Amino acid sequence: MTAEVDRAALLAAAAFRQYATCPGEARARFLRTIADGIEALGDGLIDCVSRETALPAARIAGERARTCMQLRLFADIADQGKWNDERVDAADPARTPPRPRICSGLRPIGPAAVFAASNFPLAFSVAGGDTAAALAVGCPVVLKAHPAHPETSARVGGVVAAAVASCRLPAGTFSVVTGSAHEVGLSLVRHPLIKVGAFTGSLGGGLALWRAAQARDEPIPFFAEMGSVNPLFVFADALHKNAEAVATGLHASMTLGVGQFCTQPGLVFLVADDAAHAFLQRLATLVSATPCGAMLSETHAANYRGGVAGRVDTDGVRVLGRGEQADAGRAAGAVLLAVDAETFVTNPRLADEIFGPTTLMVTCASTADFVRCAEILPGQLTATIWCEGDADRDLLWTLEQKAGRIVFNGFPTGVEVGAATMHGGPYPATTDCRFTSVGTRALSRFVRPVAWQTPA
Amino acid sequence: MTAEVDRAALLAAAAFRQYATCPGEARARFLRTIADGIEALGDGLIDCVSRETALPAARIAGERARTCMQLRLFADIADQGKWNDERVDAADPARTPPRPRICSGLRPIGPAAVFAASNFPLAFSVAGGDTAAALAVGCPVVLKAHPAHPETSARVGGVVAAAVASCRLPAGTFSVVTGSAHEVGLSLVRHPLIKVGAFTGSLGGGLALWRAAQARDEPIPFFAEMGSVNPLFVFADALHKNAEAVATGLHASMTLGVGQFCTQPGLVFLVADDAAHAFLQRLATLVSATPCGAMLSETHAANYRGGVAGRVDTDGVRVLGRGEQADAGRAAGAVLLAVDAETFVTNPRLADEIFGPTTLMVTCASTADFVRCAEILPGQLTATIWCEGDADRDLLWTLEQKAGRIVFNGFPTGVEVGAATMHGGPYPATTDCRFTSVGTRALSRFVRPVAWQTPA
Repeated sequence: MTAEVDRAALLAAAAFRQYATCPGEARARFLRTIADGIEALGDGLIDCVSRETALPAARIAGERARTCMQLRLFADIADQGKWNDERVDAADPARTPPRPRICSGLRPIGPAAVFAASNFPLAFSVAGGDTAAALAVGCPVVLKAHPAHPETSARVGGVVAAAVASCRLPAGTFSVVTGSAHEVGLSLVRHPLIKVGAFTGSLGGGLALWRAAQARDEPIPFFAEMGSVNPLFVFADALHKNAEAVATGLHASMTLGVGQFCTQPGLVFLVADDAAHAFLQRLATLVSATPCGAMLSETHAANYRGGVAGRVDTDGVRVLGRGEQADAGRAAGAVLLAVDAETFVTNPRLADEIFGPTTLMVTCASTADFVRCAEILPGQLTATIWCEGDADRDLLWTLEQKAGRIVFNGFPTGVEVGAATMHGGPYPATTDCRFTSVGTRALSRFVRPVAWQTPA
Repeated sequence: MTAEVDRAALLAAAAFRQYATCPGEARARFLRTIADGIEALGDGLIDCVSRETALPAARIAGERARTCMQLRLFADIADQGKWNDERVDAADPARTPPRPRICSGLRPIGPAAVFAASNFPLAFSVAGGDTAAALAVGCPVVLKAHPAHPETSARVGGVVAAAVASCRLPAGTFSVVTGSAHEVGLSLVRHPLIKVGAFTGSLGGGLALWRAAQARDEPIPFFAEMGSVNPLFVFADALHKNAEAVATGLHASMTLGVGQFCTQPGLVFLVADDAAHAFLQRLATLVSATPCGAMLSETHAANYRGGVAGRVDTDGVRVLGRGEQADAGRAAGAVLLAVDAETFVTNPRLADEIFGPTTLMVTCASTADFVRCAEILPGQLTATIWCEGDADRDLLWTLEQKAGRIVFNGFPTGVEVGAATMHGGPYPATTDCRFTSVGTRALSRFVRPVAWQTPA
């Protein structure tokens, strides 16, 4: 265990009681102070994030707005105090035996380990959604910073530390731990004083931490959101009516942020008719005209290029279009690939996520192939149906079993933050289909019911 | 995998869509038909349970009433349809970009594996609380019967099968699988068509199944309730005022049902003053006058006798009283043991559960020892405080972190079933402190949020 992890966990445990039992208004004020502090960093923060992540300033400004909105949304939740689902079963002294009074409500689990993601250096990082949800309900947070944006993490961490001080909260309410070695994160999850955890990132990283959480002497709840390939199913009627809108929209969604979203549409199913042929040509033209972009790190770009090369070499996979390409550094170019449904169903690796701006178009003989392909998909964050009128019931049912969010006539990128949000899904999209990492339902990961019983 | 398990899982998967999407009223009618059918079995069922489990008729009649009440409570839940927590975030076409409409709600996870417990042959068995909760929300159930009461399981299973038929539900809505080999339960949890599981029983059994659920290619949510030692902390003022009531109440609670409850009080902390000395003598007298009782099986009795013998041989442990004892067969006698707090804190094995009618009294130098001892306890289903006036805040806080239910001036046996019920707790009481296996909150184990997004 690193000394930094041990110190942070000890501080968090020492802070837990005071932080958990302070009024909701105090936690709300704290979250709002963090949001105000992030905004007060001004353009300096934007420049810093841009320098570290290569993300464009407009995107970062948007993400900053989202981050502050999330903090204020959870501040409102803490303020209102309704999240704890208080319930009372009245006593009944006349019953034999007398029925006691039982009241119960949700309480914070304890010090939380939160893991920052590389692809949202603000919204899923130091003061991101997981941190906001845990802090709102009274869990101190030990934040494992992502090594891809250290200065951003330090600046936002400084804002949170200043908010802890100005709100007169115990020092261990929030700590940042750093380091790129896997051992840092593992030792945090294994620390006996850490009682719950949340992660956003890769399948490999999420699984390693989740398994470490289960293998402890005292296993703890640990939620990992591990990405998804986000299939689209495009019915002929919708394609015929909206070909240009679907082509431009899909191109924008697949290449948005150089494809670095867990909701990037990596797989599209459509029926191979003449309209589909024209549509694929149009989409290939758009992809071919796409400039290459800088990914979050050289590692991301190397993994992307390797993933695409492997898929291109797969039997039956055709290249429909390539944007501007690069062979080294952070740069990555969009690639549009295609395969027929018969090949797709025989090769489950074709449903694996490649993190970056590539999409595999699966051409089907008929819509009957849609359900057949959907049934073999692993769990997803999202699944999308493009259709006119009511969606095919068999396909909709199948996708509801596979994905946390069903998108109709739209694109999966862009995760709204609200009370109805579900950003989760069956494994391997996440480690537990019952939870979401975005929206107000996200706080459920950090609370447990406690009941108090008194005599009739 | 056994053919029986495979057949049941296939049938459950085939039934899932129809059962999950039928109206809540149909699931309510089904649950009420089961309750009516259990009552219609009349005294024949009581005789059968009594013969198989050695539980007295009055206890079984009470458990039958509880079982039918649970089924009807979950029928009301299914009827009302409020459990699914529907939420809507309205569209906003004026926003840039337009905000889509998102609605979300809870949906059944899929075919559930439910494991019957030996100690509640009706209420935690074939048509017990786990089955009722899963069926209420639309999960078909494959029930692993407990080998300790096969005929009871067959009779209640027959009632459920008849209800499936008379309610015209798909055959796979409910199946019973049998067998005493561990492999039966493991193969059920490992079956790819099983999507969620619930268990009540021993730590060893629960952990084995939980680990199997996590080790699957597609891990699934699996909740195990694994029992508890249910500590009581008796403050001197309460003891002085209520000595006789605490002695008779504790004796009744520790020996109830031959101590075969997951909420049996196995550990009692009190300050060693003169009143405590007299109290212990009185309790020892009550225990010594206790006739031996028949446990659920010879295995239970042998494990109990072995557990007590091991504890008696532990350094520092004294025998305060022994009821009528037996050396073989199902019979088990009550045993009251004592140890001082200094010894207790050095030997964590003294906090292990011994399933049966024995309790360890821990004599403390002062109430300061209460918090010191509470802090080293593992997770519990319950913790009890006997005190006059407000409870000690440090002890209460500590126990709230350790237990799912805090009992004031009462005894932990007797789990009320209602909206406020929490029958769960941190590991090792259960595998996940966020869930309960009793009361209406129990349905949360079997549902997942799904969101539907439509364009602004």
